[in-house]
Amino acid sequence: MLIKVVNPNTSRPMTEMIGRSAHAVAAAGTEILAVTAPMGPASIESHYDEALAVPGVLAETRDADGYVIACFGDPGLDAAREVARGPVVGMAEAAMRAASYLGRGFSVVTTLDRSRGRTWDLAERYGVGRFCRGVHACGIRVLDLDQDPDARKTITAACRHALERDESDAIVLGCAGMTHLVADLAVEVGAPVVDGVQAATLAVQSLLTMGLRTGDRGEYAAPPPKPYSGLLHGFGR
Amino acid sequence: MLIKVVNPNTSRPMTEMIGRSAHAVAAAGTEILAVTAPMGPASIESHYDEALAVPGVLAETRDADGYVIACFGDPGLDAAREVARGPVVGMAEAAMRAASYLGRGFSVVTTLDRSRGRTWDLAERYGVGRFCRGVHACGIRVLDLDQDPDARKTITAACRHALERDESDAIVLGCAGMTHLVADLAVEVGAPVVDGVQAATLAVQSLLTMGLRTGDRGEYAAPPPKPYSGLLHGFGR
Amino acid sequence: MLIKVVNPNTSRPMTEMIGRSAHAVAAAGTEILAVTAPMGPASIESHYDEALAVPGVLAETRDADGYVIACFGDPGLDAAREVARGPVVGMAEAAMRAASYLGRGFSVVTTLDRSRGRTWDLAERYGVGRFCRGVHACGIRVLDLDQDPDARKTITAACRHALERDESDAIVLGCAGMTHLVADLAVEVGAPVVDGVQAATLAVQSLLTMGLRTGDRGEYAAPPPKPYSGLLHGFGR
Amino acid sequence: MLIKVVNPNTSRPMTEMIGRSAHAVAAAGTEILAVTAPMGPASIESHYDEALAVPGVLAETRDADGYVIACFGDPGLDAAREVARGPVVGMAEAAMRAASYLGRGFSVVTTLDRSRGRTWDLAERYGVGRFCRGVHACGIRVLDLDQDPDARKTITAACRHALERDESDAIVLGCAGMTHLVADLAVEVGAPVVDGVQAATLAVQSLLTMGLRTGDRGEYAAPPPKPYSGLLHGFGR
Amino acid sequence: MLIKVVNPNTSRPMTEMIGRSAHAVAAAGTEILAVTAPMGPASIESHYDEALAVPGVLAETRDADGYVIACFGDPGLDAAREVARGPVVGMAEAAMRAASYLGRGFSVVTTLDRSRGRTWDLAERYGVGRFCRGVHACGIRVLDLDQDPDARKTITAACRHALERDESDAIVLGCAGMTHLVADLAVEVGAPVVDGVQAATLAVQSLLTMGLRTGDRGEYAAPPPKPYSGLLHGFGR
Amino acid sequence: MLIKVVNPNTSRPMTEMIGRSAHAVAAAGTEILAVTAPMGPASIESHYDEALAVPGVLAETRDADGYVIACFGDPGLDAAREVARGPVVGMAEAAMRAASYLGRGFSVVTTLDRSRGRTWDLAERYGVGRFCRGVHACGIRVLDLDQDPDARKTITAACRHALERDESDAIVLGCAGMTHLVADLAVEVGAPVVDGVQAATLAVQSLLTMGLRTGDRGEYAAPPPKPYSGLLHGFGR
Repeated sequence: MLIKVVNPNTSRPMTEMIGRSAHAVAAAGTEILAVTAPMGPASIESHYDEALAVPGVLAETRDADGYVIACFGDPGLDAAREVARGPVVGMAEAAMRAASYLGRGFSVVTTLDRSRGRTWDLAERYGVGRFCRGVHACGIRVLDLDQDPDARKTITAACRHALERDESDAIVLGCAGMTHLVADLAVEVGAPVVDGVQAATLAVQSLLTMGLRTGDRGEYAAPPPKPYSGLLHGFGR
Repeated sequence: MLIKVVNPNTSRPMTEMIGRSAHAVAAAGTEILAVTAPMGPASIESHYDEALAVPGVLAETRDADGYVIACFGDPGLDAAREVARGPVVGMAEAAMRAASYLGRGFSVVTTLDRSRGRTWDLAERYGVGRFCRGVHACGIRVLDLDQDPDARKTITAACRHALERDESDAIVLGCAGMTHLVADLAVEVGAPVVDGVQAATLAVQSLLTMGLRTGDRGEYAAPPPKPYSGLLHGFGR
Repeated sequence: MLIKVVNPNTSRPMTEMIGRSAHAVAAAGTEILAVTAPMGPASIESHYDEALAVPGVLAETRDADGYVIACFGDPGLDAAREVARGPVVGMAEAAMRAASYLGRGFSVVTTLDRSRGRTWDLAERYGVGRFCRGVHACGIRVLDLDQDPDARKTITAACRHALERDESDAIVLGCAGMTHLVADLAVEVGAPVVDGVQAATLAVQSLLTMGLRTGDRGEYAAPPPKPYSGLLHGFGR
Repeated sequence: MLIKVVNPNTSRPMTEMIGRSAHAVAAAGTEILAVTAPMGPASIESHYDEALAVPGVLAETRDADGYVIACFGDPGLDAAREVARGPVVGMAEAAMRAASYLGRGFSVVTTLDRSRGRTWDLAERYGVGRFCRGVHACGIRVLDLDQDPDARKTITAACRHALERDESDAIVLGCAGMTHLVADLAVEVGAPVVDGVQAATLAVQSLLTMGLRTGDRGEYAAPPPKPYSGLLHGFGR
Repeated sequence: MLIKVVNPNTSRPMTEMIGRSAHAVAAAGTEILAVTAPMGPASIESHYDEALAVPGVLAETRDADGYVIACFGDPGLDAAREVARGPVVGMAEAAMRAASYLGRGFSVVTTLDRSRGRTWDLAERYGVGRFCRGVHACGIRVLDLDQDPDARKTITAACRHALERDESDAIVLGCAGMTHLVADLAVEVGAPVVDGVQAATLAVQSLLTMGLRTGDRGEYAAPPPKPYSGLLHGFGR
Repeated sequence: MLIKVVNPNTSRPMTEMIGRSAHAVAAAGTEILAVTAPMGPASIESHYDEALAVPGVLAETRDADGYVIACFGDPGLDAAREVARGPVVGMAEAAMRAASYLGRGFSVVTTLDRSRGRTWDLAERYGVGRFCRGVHACGIRVLDLDQDPDARKTITAACRHALERDESDAIVLGCAGMTHLVADLAVEVGAPVVDGVQAATLAVQSLLTMGLRTGDRGEYAAPPPKPYSGLLHGFGR
């Protein structure tokens, strides 16, 4: 069973970190392949970045049994489900659904203020709006998460503030770049902390174990082939 | 890692069947213990049955790392989360959340017409109302599911009807007593079919793998101890 | 016309108080019978307590024309509607619906923080989520409501705070144990205060006057008879 | 205790019928005064009619302890609550809330197709959208309800169709002009049938019994006095 | 192309101001006719005022190609759509829909606290509840908006407070009497400010340019003619 | 005032048709520039096509006063709003909002069955879910809309079916490739028919007339500059 974990940020160190995190929770028979999108922005911090990360995600949605999209905006999820032969899970949907098992409500702690709107959109789309009690930014940019020496302290403070203010039962980490901090944060804040890279890896593994993949009878059937032009002509099917 | 799968129906053959189904998807290091509730109705086919199944479920919510409630009404879920030390997952919530990864919408196929209302309540509570496109009854009573020689044929027909009418991407089986049919049904209807016993077992296993359990800072803290009177006095904490 | 008011808390002084409150609003021809559940927790302050209060409520849902469930969690409401021959009304649903006639929004003042989640669940289920602007705890335990000499003062302060903060038009008292305070509180806070024991008694009386009871064509038909095992075997139908 | 039942349709025979219906359910000490709006349309069958019925309703919202608005569109409800000293209840809100006690869902049977939209608006406003499963027209105009010899038969058929199609637990009659038929219809269709004239009368009586009236701390405080010009100058406060 | 802009407040200076504002945005070929309702309250500051403003609005809904209702409560909108031959747009619906193009959320700044509830009702009815993040009162009465020398300063402060607190992308002015301030306010608060008089005028002009008017196949067909009695007899159709 | 109408389908004949349609409704002083996306799929008929159309849309979101995205999936809308200096409007949002002025509900008639899900997503996102009563496919592929000699007849039939079945007040055309048919269809079906190319052009023109553009205080501020790699490196800002 091969699960490909696609990092839509074109930043290789982040991909390695994501791979380690996914590997840590995978079962014995599950192989994890973490890959960096072959084109797109170095990090995803706007709708613009996210839109332009999608072609790279789609280019990697092949040659595995299941797929994880390892960016909290879940870029390209619907399209990936059309073209993949196996299940595809976004880290935001997996994290927010996992957190919904842990109590009445969770808080998301993400990077920048401007990313909060996208999280609310996803929460509503995934039907977890009633569980999501707040989305908080810690003010650290994606690529600084493993550079900034104060990152862990700042994020811990944001988690504590979120738990208190939202009266939440759990925290969801709102960026793949926080995946390495999940165990420490849980200890420090004294509440469950969910990382979407791990949650999505386990969701894909579970779906594969049950023999489940995206239904292909209607909206998610393979897209009709057609010519593509310009820089994207290589995507024609 | 020990996961206790509690059958709220006081019917031992069903418990065995449920245990086999959970065991079939569990990872190498996961031990499955399927138990029958020590008191309650032989099968759950009304709000009355379900209410009276809860004390038996709560009596078994102890001595394991995580718990599955193996009845599609998820009886006693909130209470079990208060008293359990590890995560507790209901089979309806796990099945409906798993099916939400498989497309835009799913249909539930359950036993009796009168059980459909409860399913809609749960779908709304779990935030999957927008994914649940229909709830259909096959007209077979719970304890006849493995007795009726036509059960498989009847359920297959109900699944096909549901997929067609609801334009769904997947089927969710709405009774623990259908768990042994899941693989066959998927082949026959040509669409993903989700069984909640397996989905909940994998959800608990995944939560345990990530070190997650119900948040206990507020609503789900251990209940305050107090005297219980009457037949229920043994439940006092 | 006999209305049975069932106290799911197995605390007789509270039952007497509830009976007096119901009697005070009943019409001339209406007989009120207040009864204590024959089994269950002394007071209901958790999902666990509430789940275990249900068998006692169901044991008393017989031999009257209509029924009030006198605990703000409305334990066992669906099941009671299946087995009762007359209408059954929970005090939370009646209070919140009555308050919906009094303005754009109401605030609930209940006992403990941990009970607030259940109130929100009920508000949504009854369709009054848009009228419910806040749920506030006064921090007094159920059985202390008539013991604590400062209870009235503390609850008055909580009501005032709720009205101010939520900009509400009315208060709903969120515990049967507050029923004796309703008249005084209304005077002190200068806004309508609704007690669910009285509201539910009048709702049942009104339904009976109109000749109405739960529809029994589908979900709420009498439950199918079946064997019950364990301590609950006496409930078999 | 004096309850004024205001008929917004300027049709005196209907007012008499409404008065009899309200009187039939009122308690011993409750006086019912049924009045016809002093201006407005003979019957209400459009948004235009309803808008122009409002001044007549408001002219009558005085000199009583509580008020019923006896037209299923509840015309002028918010404004009446501002100017009345006692509680004001619309027949649609009372009927739909009463029916919500009787099961999972009800169907409304009203007069004309074009009135159905208004009913859906009200259902949503009152928070009973989840209980309202269908709104059906019987095709009889308001003033023909007590003239058309086939009215009872036609409405019975519409109720049966609604119960079947919507799988409802109860019927709500969607016009004050059907109030005299409620008892017969309940017998004929074998399911609970709710008449809003009676439901609203009992709701007002219950609120008065509990000493409750509209909150006047904010939105529903008495409107600021000001000059009115044109035909409406008599309404200045 | 003649667009009639109806001021439901019977205050001629406000009508002139509204006319200038509408004229300023109309295209070359569009004629604007601003009229004062021939009867009703001098200004609209309660549900009572609003209800009594409707007959005057309906009396003016004729003899033009399209209509704007220039009061933020959109009084009489449904009824006007039934009787008008061309499109009818309320200033609240137009303003809130226009603001929905400008970001994730807007804040409304209106006159009095008691008017906020109506705005929320409209936001929900028009489907913009998810875009409306807050409704704030500036505390200035309608007819003082162009008298109070501090009005502009006070409203500017309210807009700034709203943007900050609601984290909104835009402001919607919640009263026709603020229309003359829109350009200045936009400059002062540094964010888009939407005036509904202008938004509604352009919405009507756009609908007319596309040849669109209210559908008349069902609910919005011309109302059935019938006798009207009392002061309103002139409205009979 | 220059409005750029971007066709995300890389099909020049469709762009010309779209340009004519936009030009037909633009005011005297409004210049329309219709452009074809410089890269992407020939037509958009899947989530995959739509995702890959976005870079082409973003490449064209510059050098004008306002922008229309002329594909009914509104691809790239959020990202375009971040990078554009003027307002950006999608044709689906404009069409559905315009149709919301025309009655209680509209039906969408689109091309293929598989595109219906995306329309429902957008309806919900734009807050028009309550107005959208049905989404119907006519079964004609995008590039056949102006080739298939029966297209007009087939779409007319689909519109009539939709109006009847959904009891709608208006039709929304669900594809830019239908823009040339709008006037004929309105005549043939006898109900308002809304074309999103025209509706969006007029929405942008109206916003520009009022001096409004996307708020840039938060989520829609210009995206932070960063390196882009691979085929998309030209998009770096």
